[in-house]
Amino acid sequence: MPVNYSPAASLLPVKGIRLSSLDANIRYKHDRDDLTLIEISEGSSVAGVFTQNAFCAAPVKVCRDHLQQEDYIRYLVINAGNANAGTGEEGMTSAQMICAEIADETGTALNSVLPFSTGVIGEQLPYWKIVDRVEELVEKLDAHNWMTAAKAIMTTDTTMKALSKTVEIDGKTVTITGMTKGAGMIEPNMATMLAYVAIDAGIEQDMLQTILNQAVSASFNSISVDSDTSTNDALMLIATGQSGVNLNEVSDLDKNTIIGLIHSTCIELAQAIIRDAEGATKFVTINVEAAPTPSYAKEIAYSVARSPLVKTALFASDPNWGRLLMAVGKAPVKDLDVSKISLWLGETLLLENGQPADSYTEELGQAEMDKEEITVRINLNVGEAKAHVWTSDLSHEYVTINADYRS
Amino acid sequence: MPVNYSPAASLLPVKGIRLSSLDANIRYKHDRDDLTLIEISEGSSVAGVFTQNAFCAAPVKVCRDHLQQEDYIRYLVINAGNANAGTGEEGMTSAQMICAEIADETGTALNSVLPFSTGVIGEQLPYWKIVDRVEELVEKLDAHNWMTAAKAIMTTDTTMKALSKTVEIDGKTVTITGMTKGAGMIEPNMATMLAYVAIDAGIEQDMLQTILNQAVSASFNSISVDSDTSTNDALMLIATGQSGVNLNEVSDLDKNTIIGLIHSTCIELAQAIIRDAEGATKFVTINVEAAPTPSYAKEIAYSVARSPLVKTALFASDPNWGRLLMAVGKAPVKDLDVSKISLWLGETLLLENGQPADSYTEELGQAEMDKEEITVRINLNVGEAKAHVWTSDLSHEYVTINADYRS
Repeated sequence: MPVNYSPAASLLPVKGIRLSSLDANIRYKHDRDDLTLIEISEGSSVAGVFTQNAFCAAPVKVCRDHLQQEDYIRYLVINAGNANAGTGEEGMTSAQMICAEIADETGTALNSVLPFSTGVIGEQLPYWKIVDRVEELVEKLDAHNWMTAAKAIMTTDTTMKALSKTVEIDGKTVTITGMTKGAGMIEPNMATMLAYVAIDAGIEQDMLQTILNQAVSASFNSISVDSDTSTNDALMLIATGQSGVNLNEVSDLDKNTIIGLIHSTCIELAQAIIRDAEGATKFVTINVEAAPTPSYAKEIAYSVARSPLVKTALFASDPNWGRLLMAVGKAPVKDLDVSKISLWLGETLLLENGQPADSYTEELGQAEMDKEEITVRINLNVGEAKAHVWTSDLSHEYVTINADYRS
Repeated sequence: MPVNYSPAASLLPVKGIRLSSLDANIRYKHDRDDLTLIEISEGSSVAGVFTQNAFCAAPVKVCRDHLQQEDYIRYLVINAGNANAGTGEEGMTSAQMICAEIADETGTALNSVLPFSTGVIGEQLPYWKIVDRVEELVEKLDAHNWMTAAKAIMTTDTTMKALSKTVEIDGKTVTITGMTKGAGMIEPNMATMLAYVAIDAGIEQDMLQTILNQAVSASFNSISVDSDTSTNDALMLIATGQSGVNLNEVSDLDKNTIIGLIHSTCIELAQAIIRDAEGATKFVTINVEAAPTPSYAKEIAYSVARSPLVKTALFASDPNWGRLLMAVGKAPVKDLDVSKISLWLGETLLLENGQPADSYTEELGQAEMDKEEITVRINLNVGEAKAHVWTSDLSHEYVTINADYRS
């Protein structure tokens, strides 16, 4: 069960985007759709960020190649159930076969199709199951299919994660809709996470990539479930321009509104992943402040967020705050002056300038730990930089899910 | 239950070392001894390595100070049940009070006593419970108390971990006995691990520290249970010289024999920690070879050893070897050429030069995964350096132990 998360009751169409999904029997369990096609109207801009894992999957390589070779991306094809990773040259061929079939069926260039896969690593993708259904996928394309697509891209997710927002600019409505999947193997470098965000404002390619990079840093690259980094992650941001609102033609205020819309959509999707993290019973925010640099702050935040002992204490609602000290102290940063550190669990002061707080009682700590939403605040008192990481706890359910994933 | 590990039936006295233990009621459960004193004869050399955690515990600070100020260490005092970490100035005073009482009772210098603590972090150490029992501890000192001491230093350990070895040199018997505790929070930088190794060969202080540093690199700094790093870890190596064999006076061959005895003792103790790791059901060796540098190899070995998804697959005996690729690929090393990597699970080839091995079958993978002792071999094919890490799997029992540790 996700922590304080209810899936959207409906999603808004984004002008210039059509979607379709069907059950192509790629997943082990054949109980729902697992194949999705997204059509992007001509003239749209598409920006992407991908996994940093050296063993990146075949579809990730194909995406990078196609984005480099082609200015206009027209189709995204996404399968769940098989990651097409660790599959060598055969896997590359499979990904290309799928793109070729879609290009052929729709009369577009091969390079304008991007493939995405998520699921088990190390097994060959049965690409023919996808190729056989392309005609049907294209026929079913419809602007109102975001809900079915958000469900079809799921793997171990317990809920679909998607949202829509709108804003009025110069009397026109700009709509953004985003969907994501991913519940484990989530870490800074975009782990087994797929996300697709489309906005009908017009944004030039270079600007779109810049906006995406900034948005990712504060959202998808500020979450951690288990410190593992997938071979397949990708986040795509699409701007169709079909609302008639163009970023280059609006006031600075409206420009910031549009960029803010993209940022908040990415943050809410990233938080949704943590709320639905494998086995999660807590939603935990680690805030590090007064650090010398943002990366210094983030190293400490991640050291706490990744610690199995912190995460099991969170699962047990045990105010065993010594584990927080341990996790701060083991962070790979230089010259950490523990005598300056103050530490809070929610509103409860644990440590002041490196000394245990006189005001702390076990009852106060327990009251904070009993909450579903927990914030840890770490003040280093040495600078002005800060960082945050959202994370979940480590439960029996996490072990169960990951010990049984393939069965 | 430890994996393929039976505790030693007996331990040999080391000339120049006497020990005593008793139940001082420091632990939550009062069902066994939790306080130990080790007496070291005059003229012995003592070398140590300590945690790298910035929030190191009060006793670690006191150890470092005393080792710097005093040439001859005469007493080590060890309590289980409370780590005296995160306890600020009050914790420093507690550690000093204990040392002062022992110095007073034995007529030695304050600086010749080293304190060690292990257990819960963030609670003040009831030092008076220790001070009150010092007289009794000193009275009980005996060369034959290694077994009781090895049990008294345990926390969540399910078995005592200790061993003795002997070697004949120039007609004299050199004896080494070592004991260690630690089952969770075990990581490269010496986590919640205490180890005491004594040999009755004579070895000068500087040489002893050099031997210890080398031995640690291949043993205690090559293991990982959960990637957490404790505030309290310490490994002490004592050379009493009372066997009459001195490292400076023997042949190069005998010198290597003595150093080898220390190395193999450290390796066996470190492996015992992994065999008794919290919730462990597997003993796993990660070998990385043909790497550009040893540290490059070790980063990759640790990336695999630390991965929760690899560890849950090991727990499930699931040959989901894609997770191994993922874990290799996410290692924080530069210019990893995956097209050169070959990978074996036991004797079974999974990947050859970055391509899935044609010879692999699920049955072969399953047969390897069903074993209690599993070896993963990763050949990078780019250099001549290598590294190993020993690790355990991630089980339900790990979560249970760490969610319940204080109760």
